[in-house]
Amino acid sequence: MSRTLLTPQELAQALSALPDWDIVSSGKAIRRLFTFKDFNEAFGFMTRIAMHAEKLDHHPEWSNVYNKVEVTLTTHSSQGISKLDIQMAEIMDKLGG
Amino acid sequence: MSRTLLTPQELAQALSALPDWDIVSSGKAIRRLFTFKDFNEAFGFMTRIAMHAEKLDHHPEWSNVYNKVEVTLTTHSSQGISKLDIQMAEIMDKLGG
Repeated sequence: MSRTLLTPQELAQALSALPDWDIVSSGKAIRRLFTFKDFNEAFGFMTRIAMHAEKLDHHPEWSNVYNKVEVTLTTHSSQGISKLDIQMAEIMDKLGG
Repeated sequence: MSRTLLTPQELAQALSALPDWDIVSSGKAIRRLFTFKDFNEAFGFMTRIAMHAEKLDHHPEWSNVYNKVEVTLTTHSSQGISKLDIQMAEIMDKLGG
């Protein structure tokens, strides 16, 4: 099940391929800050991600201040980090640099 | 100048027409939480606002979690609340209900 919590081993392995992401202090989410040239580029990124989020039915928690987008990914129904969060992080890295 | 700080009187008058907005504790920004039906509606709102923000060259600080959008408006160059923030708040109220 894609919303099943990852084991510590699975999580460690997944994050080794996502070096820009950190585990938040609760251990229940991953976080990354993306920096773009300007608001246009930052919001363009958010728009592309929004469509992926709808398709996956898995939505980021995110904030935007001008050229910066801070993203937190967690799976609420499982209260932690699942394969879906890793999948979304991979998509974000691909589209957000 | 649209980025000039509002006087306390001007601010009080402007906010009387914006009852859903609060002044944050620093006194240097206004804030509102918008709640929508779902992510699609929340992000649709953000997209429409993004275009206004670019046109006005005045960008919100905002965060989104599924159907919720929390917005903070401030004028960094003036370190406080200006006419542009009120203008943006009025646009947001019009488009966000």
